[in-house]
Amino acid sequence: MNILDCLATALGEKGLATGKDMDAWTKDWTGQYHWTPLCVARPANTQEVSAVLAAAYEARLPVVPVSGNTGLAGGTKGEGAIMLSLDRMNQIREVRKDARSAVVEAGVVLSELHSAAEEEGLSFPMTFGARGSCRIGGMLSTNAGGSNVLRYGNTRDLVLGVEVVLADGRVMDLMSALHKDNSGLNLKHLVIGAEGTLGVITAAVVKLVPKPGAYATAVVGTNTLGEALILLNRLQEITGGAVEAFEYMCPNYLRAYHAMHPDQRPILSEPAPVTLLVEVGATAPRDIEPDADGTVPITGYLEAALGDLLEEGAVVDAVVAQSEAQRSEMWAMREAAAEVSLTHKPLVNNDIAVALDDVSVFLESINARLKALDPEATAITVSHLGDGNIHYTVWPSKDDPQHADAIMAACEDEALALRGSFSAEHGIGLTKLPSMARRKDPVAIETMRAIKAALDPRNILNPGKVIPATVSE
Amino acid sequence: MNILDCLATALGEKGLATGKDMDAWTKDWTGQYHWTPLCVARPANTQEVSAVLAAAYEARLPVVPVSGNTGLAGGTKGEGAIMLSLDRMNQIREVRKDARSAVVEAGVVLSELHSAAEEEGLSFPMTFGARGSCRIGGMLSTNAGGSNVLRYGNTRDLVLGVEVVLADGRVMDLMSALHKDNSGLNLKHLVIGAEGTLGVITAAVVKLVPKPGAYATAVVGTNTLGEALILLNRLQEITGGAVEAFEYMCPNYLRAYHAMHPDQRPILSEPAPVTLLVEVGATAPRDIEPDADGTVPITGYLEAALGDLLEEGAVVDAVVAQSEAQRSEMWAMREAAAEVSLTHKPLVNNDIAVALDDVSVFLESINARLKALDPEATAITVSHLGDGNIHYTVWPSKDDPQHADAIMAACEDEALALRGSFSAEHGIGLTKLPSMARRKDPVAIETMRAIKAALDPRNILNPGKVIPATVSE
Repeated sequence: MNILDCLATALGEKGLATGKDMDAWTKDWTGQYHWTPLCVARPANTQEVSAVLAAAYEARLPVVPVSGNTGLAGGTKGEGAIMLSLDRMNQIREVRKDARSAVVEAGVVLSELHSAAEEEGLSFPMTFGARGSCRIGGMLSTNAGGSNVLRYGNTRDLVLGVEVVLADGRVMDLMSALHKDNSGLNLKHLVIGAEGTLGVITAAVVKLVPKPGAYATAVVGTNTLGEALILLNRLQEITGGAVEAFEYMCPNYLRAYHAMHPDQRPILSEPAPVTLLVEVGATAPRDIEPDADGTVPITGYLEAALGDLLEEGAVVDAVVAQSEAQRSEMWAMREAAAEVSLTHKPLVNNDIAVALDDVSVFLESINARLKALDPEATAITVSHLGDGNIHYTVWPSKDDPQHADAIMAACEDEALALRGSFSAEHGIGLTKLPSMARRKDPVAIETMRAIKAALDPRNILNPGKVIPATVSE
Repeated sequence: MNILDCLATALGEKGLATGKDMDAWTKDWTGQYHWTPLCVARPANTQEVSAVLAAAYEARLPVVPVSGNTGLAGGTKGEGAIMLSLDRMNQIREVRKDARSAVVEAGVVLSELHSAAEEEGLSFPMTFGARGSCRIGGMLSTNAGGSNVLRYGNTRDLVLGVEVVLADGRVMDLMSALHKDNSGLNLKHLVIGAEGTLGVITAAVVKLVPKPGAYATAVVGTNTLGEALILLNRLQEITGGAVEAFEYMCPNYLRAYHAMHPDQRPILSEPAPVTLLVEVGATAPRDIEPDADGTVPITGYLEAALGDLLEEGAVVDAVVAQSEAQRSEMWAMREAAAEVSLTHKPLVNNDIAVALDDVSVFLESINARLKALDPEATAITVSHLGDGNIHYTVWPSKDDPQHADAIMAACEDEALALRGSFSAEHGIGLTKLPSMARRKDPVAIETMRAIKAALDPRNILNPGKVIPATVSE
């Protein structure tokens, strides 16, 4: 039987898209990649995912898993491939309030999981700009980061168990809901972050945490990144580690944001060299219940720290959110980052991590390198500063892939000179494959290749992604 | 060249032990396993580890890595093998106070890392009874748990980077110190918990955390495990999640402990059905600085919670430690667990995990099963109750391996009926290999076998451990 007939039989009419119906799966969110799949398989359950993979394995056809398709590294490009979309597997199977966990299918939209957790007074703390359209499967497959990693860890830190369908269609049940389970090689962590190259994640057990009963949020201006770190450390000390988000935006970014959203007034009265979005969350009654003069203690800690540092001169300006609406406005400014970056083409999209106190060193050296490489380029820096994670986006003056690669290589040089990473949270996909080939430990790449060959001997799972075919240098 | 000559040349006189000098490496800590190695290689650095593995690979000889040799699952048994001891690689290379991390070699003793962190006002929070003799390499290779997992996670949650020597001697550098580093398949998590079957961990970058400025510790008696959980939840709520340890000891255990240590007076005036060791830690000044009447706030929270629950009848007795000496006495009682278990032979040693609210269900059903299987057996239960992790040790009435296996199988049955794990924190080694074969998802075992074959094609690394050769049932 022809593969399309075979898939049509296995999946039914709703489960298979071809021709025009594939439109949503022919490009990525960044607009950098366009492709024509063979078809789009949209299984409704694990058994159907297994049937798709068994058929593809038999026919030796490439399979590209996709859920929300909001990735930034080209991980879902699938020229001639069977796109395996998890979008119909979108059930939240269970929210266990007492166990603080949820069982979700790979196609659940992140914001829906947020809502389901909140209904039980809990929180799923992973969050980022794409939360209204990204889905759990992609989030796990890229080990997504975001704005609350500082307090709650990366995606993998929030996953207790997974269900995975292997290349030949076998289903691997690792759906433990336990916090301790040492039973052999840790296959869960191997599959998380593998970007669909080793198997297709169909479901997961995730951790939930107590929902903070109060947040204190501020936009803060400082003169230097060093002063920003003084604020971070002061806040961590006072609150016992309750800082949920500590985000940096450079002046170029804020100019571009306000140009794009002229209706949004700047939050600080004068632009500062360093603008921060700071959020502290509290769960304990002693930090939430208003004191005699009506101040919520957690807000009081933030205001006190900012007051002290204004006096000491380390902070130049600060606005503490007075309402949920103002808090949303502050977050909207930060979360437009991906959208703002994409307003210019070409662009060089970086995802660097260094030690926290090396962020300013990195920015100084890369800005100098950029000035030499392309004096007319614009650099837009947005950073999860509390994690040392820097998105250094460059709008070069000319559209030339070699030029773009030279800029990316310069970023990698400067990050690696500080023992940093060229790939912090977005993943490798296609975009970072050259960086991977030239920067990752060669023995590690050889090891990845051996594992890939062992688990996907016909190389059908997202082929050509993540693991470079050859090691450079 | 003969392998011993080859190793002697590579390692020098200090680096190779044979004959009588191997005595320390011919048995495990539990006394259950005895063996005669070919030799003990004691490399002084990563290059020497690489040389040992390259030589063993060439000669196709088994290599059993060992560091502190304090494991409870027989993972270091090495009949005829080259024992590769990391004990001479015992340098703490760096403690980075601001970055809150340390770079350590695999042979560092855990308590030495504790001290080095404390000198900088920080803490490495992984701790358990063997801390004075276990070493980092074994702790990572078994993904050890312990008493503070509730707050700080398992060993793998505290590891940022590792250096690993592969079967053929190649060195894989994954020594990232970053909190975000998504660069391909996560090989770090694959090697952690692999018990030396995929490579030898030679060094690691570990996370440090702020050292609590105050602890509040108590021994508490309740009538039921359900009441114990009320206390746990109340404490987590009041303190915003500051419970560091929540440990359960059964009456049989306390009787055996006091029989072994007659100099130690019982802490509670009357034995309670459920005895708990509870510890809360505080880092924020608001929880540490004594208030007007001299009470340290974190102690006040604990006392208030205990007072309320005494009044409500959920707690029957409680003693809050009034000094560091009293705190140590409380911990000594808990940490003698492994030692107490080993006073009787034969023993069946279990390492179960279930959901927190299933612990009492598990104990009730397994006690009933045990009564039927062996009415004269004694069961000793010690549990990291805050993690749902139960060490259910049985002293059977007769020395018969089949009988022991029937008891272990009954424990597995009851745990798996509650979707629990047969192996929470001690690892598989040899002891849990039958459990692994009959209980782990068969597709997961096949996948482990494929990875093992890909990374250790000559099967020289700790052969016959962790991954069953055949899948039962």
